[in-house]
Amino acid sequence: MTLKKINLAEKLAQFDSHWDPHVVADYNGNDVMVVKFTGEFPFHHHPETDDFFLILDGEVTIDGEAGDHVTLGPGELCIVPRGMTHRPRAVREAKVLLIEPKGVPNTGDPATAAAKPRL
Amino acid sequence: MTLKKINLAEKLAQFDSHWDPHVVADYNGNDVMVVKFTGEFPFHHHPETDDFFLILDGEVTIDGEAGDHVTLGPGELCIVPRGMTHRPRAVREAKVLLIEPKGVPNTGDPATAAAKPRL
Repeated sequence: MTLKKINLAEKLAQFDSHWDPHVVADYNGNDVMVVKFTGEFPFHHHPETDDFFLILDGEVTIDGEAGDHVTLGPGELCIVPRGMTHRPRAVREAKVLLIEPKGVPNTGDPATAAAKPRL
Repeated sequence: MTLKKINLAEKLAQFDSHWDPHVVADYNGNDVMVVKFTGEFPFHHHPETDDFFLILDGEVTIDGEAGDHVTLGPGELCIVPRGMTHRPRAVREAKVLLIEPKGVPNTGDPATAAAKPRL
């Protein structure tokens, strides 16, 4: 067993794509990921897991289906409760730390989910 | 269900104690916590869980038992594998995001564990 330092900015510098989470670490069967957001993601939900968003850079709005929303900046997090339909969006590129159990499709649907490559 | 914004700096401003994690959110049965470190924590291990550290402010060193260590700054994380004996330390006050399953003693021992109050 070894102790490993993971620098999130260095990981984010390794890709340019948006809505394309990259795995940087494992925590108890969860993927710890970095991702870049620009524009609007589709509304979706995860029936069996909460969804963890921590903003690292930029500004992200998460919309709920009922017209509610939160707008988050760096150092702010939102955990979307399991089953809640939501949509992240960002006017300009934002950088985000995501945590989801391994195997969870980021769109809520395996047919449209990102591959989640490992950095 | 509601979307809630959690500002980590605002949460950290609500207490001054060290080695005293405060719960700010829940993620799938895990406590998401903020904590301030100064000085040395005891060496300990968690037999059944990985230990998630993300540095928000300051500098933290995590020592392994074999003399290995990592030194982490803001935006850097380390996930200590389950079962690995380790000790966090900080020369000056550092602010950290921790994630651990609910009920896990921060010292590895319920007799000496912090209470983990909720903010």
